[in-house]
Parts: sequence; structure tokens; C-alpha cells
Amino acid sequence: MTGVRAPPAARAIVRGDRRALARAITAVENGSPEADPILRALYPNTGRAPIVGFTGPLGVGKSSLINALVGHLRESGRTVGVIAVDPSSPFSGGSVLGDRIRFSRRADDDGVFFRSMASRGAVGGVAGTTREVARLLDAAGFDLVLVETVGSGQVDIAIRDIATTRVVVLVPHLGDEVQTLKAGLFEIADVFCVNKSDLPGSEAAQRDLMELVSLGPKHAEYRIPIVRTSTFQPSGLTELWAAVESHEAYLDRSGERTTGERARLTQEIVGRVRDRVGVELAARLERDATLRHLIDQVVARTLDPRSAAERLYRGRSARR
Amino acid sequence: MTGVRAPPAARAIVRGDRRALARAITAVENGSPEADPILRALYPNTGRAPIVGFTGPLGVGKSSLINALVGHLRESGRTVGVIAVDPSSPFSGGSVLGDRIRFSRRADDDGVFFRSMASRGAVGGVAGTTREVARLLDAAGFDLVLVETVGSGQVDIAIRDIATTRVVVLVPHLGDEVQTLKAGLFEIADVFCVNKSDLPGSEAAQRDLMELVSLGPKHAEYRIPIVRTSTFQPSGLTELWAAVESHEAYLDRSGERTTGERARLTQEIVGRVRDRVGVELAARLERDATLRHLIDQVVARTLDPRSAAERLYRGRSARR
Repeated sequence: MTGVRAPPAARAIVRGDRRALARAITAVENGSPEADPILRALYPNTGRAPIVGFTGPLGVGKSSLINALVGHLRESGRTVGVIAVDPSSPFSGGSVLGDRIRFSRRADDDGVFFRSMASRGAVGGVAGTTREVARLLDAAGFDLVLVETVGSGQVDIAIRDIATTRVVVLVPHLGDEVQTLKAGLFEIADVFCVNKSDLPGSEAAQRDLMELVSLGPKHAEYRIPIVRTSTFQPSGLTELWAAVESHEAYLDRSGERTTGERARLTQEIVGRVRDRVGVELAARLERDATLRHLIDQVVARTLDPRSAAERLYRGRSARR
Repeated sequence: MTGVRAPPAARAIVRGDRRALARAITAVENGSPEADPILRALYPNTGRAPIVGFTGPLGVGKSSLINALVGHLRESGRTVGVIAVDPSSPFSGGSVLGDRIRFSRRADDDGVFFRSMASRGAVGGVAGTTREVARLLDAAGFDLVLVETVGSGQVDIAIRDIATTRVVVLVPHLGDEVQTLKAGLFEIADVFCVNKSDLPGSEAAQRDLMELVSLGPKHAEYRIPIVRTSTFQPSGLTELWAAVESHEAYLDRSGERTTGERARLTQEIVGRVRDRVGVELAARLERDATLRHLIDQVVARTLDPRSAAERLYRGRSARR
């Protein structure tokens, strides 16, 4: 942190002030200008905590699993920040899950911080916001940051772009439609987790995934672990966490941590510039009569959208 | 179509040549340059067919429902183009569903055209590509274009940005997790469809949705219809289609067709310019040593991502 120039809120967050942390997260979520100096001051304090993303279809029990995992991690003394990314966000602009009851019983534990988040219209979208909130949790000193999604493809992409380890959660007897997803999930999985392993068929599901993994394109040096978990009668949590740690160790050993980090940061920066250009252009289309006329022509079908975009793109270049 | 200047492929598509249509779709999907003159020439021939989007959680039977609906529409003589947008697309860049068997039995019927699609890295992403493929089907003379998604949030957004009528498909007994989705789905639904209505609880689900709709923020002039369908012993298809048509009639009556079309086109054009800026910037970051140094600083945590993005954004302005 840049010493004396750091805003008081940034210093409070590093000191462990949870209310300051919560306020900063809200500022990031809302795209408020006060988020800016805080994020800048705290950036040097980040890049330390593993960011573990959990994704998978609706109904596999990710919330219960993460709840159980948080309990397990707390028992071993590790502090955990949890971000639950809300699937309703692309449509409603607000979280339907709110501050869910399931986490309220941990309210007295300062070693856990839970935040449910929706994507607003902020520059950077859900990925951008989640990434910055994860950074705040990292700077606040949490040992681990867990990011949970609730079965939305949009958010799955965010997981790919943010997490250092991605856990894909599935259940036994996935059904035909989910089977077709496997190939897609496969590409974002660093760890497979067969949850609800108390149900019949979990061993078969694990075997299926093992076969899939053995056919997969992954590196010889890393084989995707497949663990079985249950939160009904809690089991497999130790194995699940060991699998996450084995992937984190692989990242360091192989050098992939550095290359992955660089790729994610580049993409984040490009995304911010791109989105800002979009916001600026949309505003100009509102107020500039010449540009409005361009849209009129497209609506009248005397000009096609690709040509209109081309003119705008070149116009940007010429004008500046 | 711009008469003599139209490329032969565009003229073939309008004449009803299905192979020319299929080739043009592939060109759009792959982002090939040959798609450009075809789309430009055909644009005046578009904006005619209703574009009906179907979305909803995994496992509600959208594919079977659309299959049954296509049969129903063909019986009344209407021609139908169907685009199935693949959920795996954000991850795999390729369609796992391929040309599904379920549609092959209609291969001899020239009044149905089915295409399964994945989102590639093309400018405009899945929404952009789907929108342009829908235009090709429209220009090819299909009375209706149906767009199916397979339970992915990313694609749900595409539906919102493309379709003239959005059908949200649900099933009885949605379970807790899906209940939380309702508020989000509500905002994109023009029609609710309770599928698998042969299962117990479908009337209760319909009543629940009716209550939700009555509390909702929708216009006094349009109340979201809630229909029950089954494909097991086909029922409700007439009602489902009548609901879609009532929404299409509302769009014309209220003037929302024009305002919606303008908003969608504006967004499409802004999206194309924005994405192109992103692609251009990513390429420059690769080859330009000064820009690579900017990323080095961010990786070293001596510069934060927001400040780096700010410099790049201003650099764009200054340089041009």
C-alpha cells in the first residue's frame, strides 16, 4: 500500500475493519468513484490469496457445499472470504439472494466474510466487479477467497477469467442434457467434484469423469482430480481441499501461475478499455444528431448494421 | 436486396436455396469475410419474421417442446427456421450438440431449417452471431424464426437482445434454487410456459406464476400469458402459439416493435464497435513493447489495472 497517500478506508481494510471492507465492496459494485483510490492503494497488497471458483449446473448443491467447506477451513484456522455471484444479475440488476440466512449464523466469526453480489451496469460487468471484490478480500487479509456461482453460463465465464483454481461441481445421474455440458465444463475444470455422493450412482459418476479426464487434452504434469463429497453427512471435504491445494501447487511448480495471471490481467485491462469505449459511444449516439441519423438509416433498412458499425469505428479514428 | 450488385449467394438464399443458406450461416459463424456482402445485400429483406426466443433452466424440455411446436406450425403451413444456441459455446468454441438426431427426420421438409450453433470468438459474440443468422433465415423467407437456448445465462442475455417475443419455459416443482431465479426470468419473459404439464403440480405452478405476474411491474396493456404444455401427450401447443401471437400483436399495437427494434440495433452497433476496439487493442498489446511494459508493471503490482486501462484509453485518444 502506498503509505501515507493511501485513503483512510484502504488503511482500515488492511487493519481488518470489516465495515470499511463492506462499504468498499458496495462502492465497487455500484461503480462509485470512491472505489477508485481504495482499489489503487490496495493493489500492491493483492495477488496473495488463492481464488477458488465453484461452478456447475443449477441444483448440484454448490451453496451447501461451500458452506460446509467454509466450516472445514475455519476448523483448520484459515480465514475465508466468500463471494456468491447471483445468476439473476444479468436480468434484474439486483441480487435476489441477498444476504442469505445460511451465512448469518457465522456473523459472529470475524474469520469469514460473505458477500452476495449482482452484476450491475458497471464497466467491466460481472467479471470485472467480482475480480475487484476478490482483490478487496485478498487485501483485507483473508487466506482464501471462494467465488460461488449459481448455475449461470455468463457467470461461468467470469469464473474462468478470475479464479486461480476452478472447481466444477456435478452430481450423480446428471441426465442427458447435462451430459452434453460435460465437454464444456471440462475445459474450465481444474478439479471435478461429484457432490451429493450419498445418492446412488456417485461412484459410477466418478468413474465416468475419470474416463473423460483420461481422454482429455490436459497436460501430462497435471491430472484433474475427481473427488466425491456429501454435505448431508459431511464427507470428502478434506479430499476436496487437498485437490484444490494440489492444483495451486501445480500452478507454482509449472510457472502457470505467472502466465495465467498475466493473461487475466491483460484481458481485464482490454475489457475495461473496450467497455468504456462502448459506454462513451452509446452516450454519443444519444446526443449527437448525425449519429442518431445513422441509426435511423439502419432502422429504415437503408444501411446495414455492419456498415454502420464500420463508419462509427472509422469515425472514431478520423475524429481523434 | 440491392438488385444487380447483390452477390449470387444472396440471390440464391432469397430464391430458397438451402445449401446457399447453410454456407452463409457457416460464414457468419466463422467470422469469414464472405459473410459481409451477403449480409449487406440481404439486410433490406429482413425485419419481417417474428423472432421467438425460448429460454429457461436446464432440464425443462425446451428441445422437445420446440420440436413439437415446429410440427404444430408446419401443420398450419407455416415455414420455420430454428437456431439452437449451444450452452457449451463459451467454453469449447464448438457445438457439442451438433446436428441433433431429433431434427433429422424433418430433413425432407423444405419448410423447416434447423441449425445448431456455437459462439466463436467472432466480433459480437454469441448474440451478434445469432442475430445475423436469424437475419439470414428471415431473408430466406421463413415465416418464423425460433431461437432455442439450452439453459445458459450467457445465452439468455442473447435472447433478450435478439428476440421479438421471449418465452420462458419452466416445469412444475421447480425447487428452491430455481425459485430464486423467477425474479430474473420474469424480467425477460413475454410468455411463461409451464412444460411437462402431465406431471403433478402444473396447475399450482401456473397459479404461482399468475400471482407473480399480477404483482409484477408490467404494463397495464399487456399481461404476460401463462400456458401449460406437454410433449408427452402433446397439449397446449395451440395455446402457446396463440400467446406468442398475442404478444406480437401487442408489439404492433403499442409501438413497442419500433422502439424495441431501434434499441436492439443501437446496442448491436455499439457492441460491434466496442468489440472491434477490444480486438484491436489486444493485438496492439501483443506487438507493442511500450504497451507490453504497461502490463509488466501491472503484473509486478507497481501499477493497478484501472490506472493501466485509463492510460490506454487516453493513449487511444491522444494518438489519433
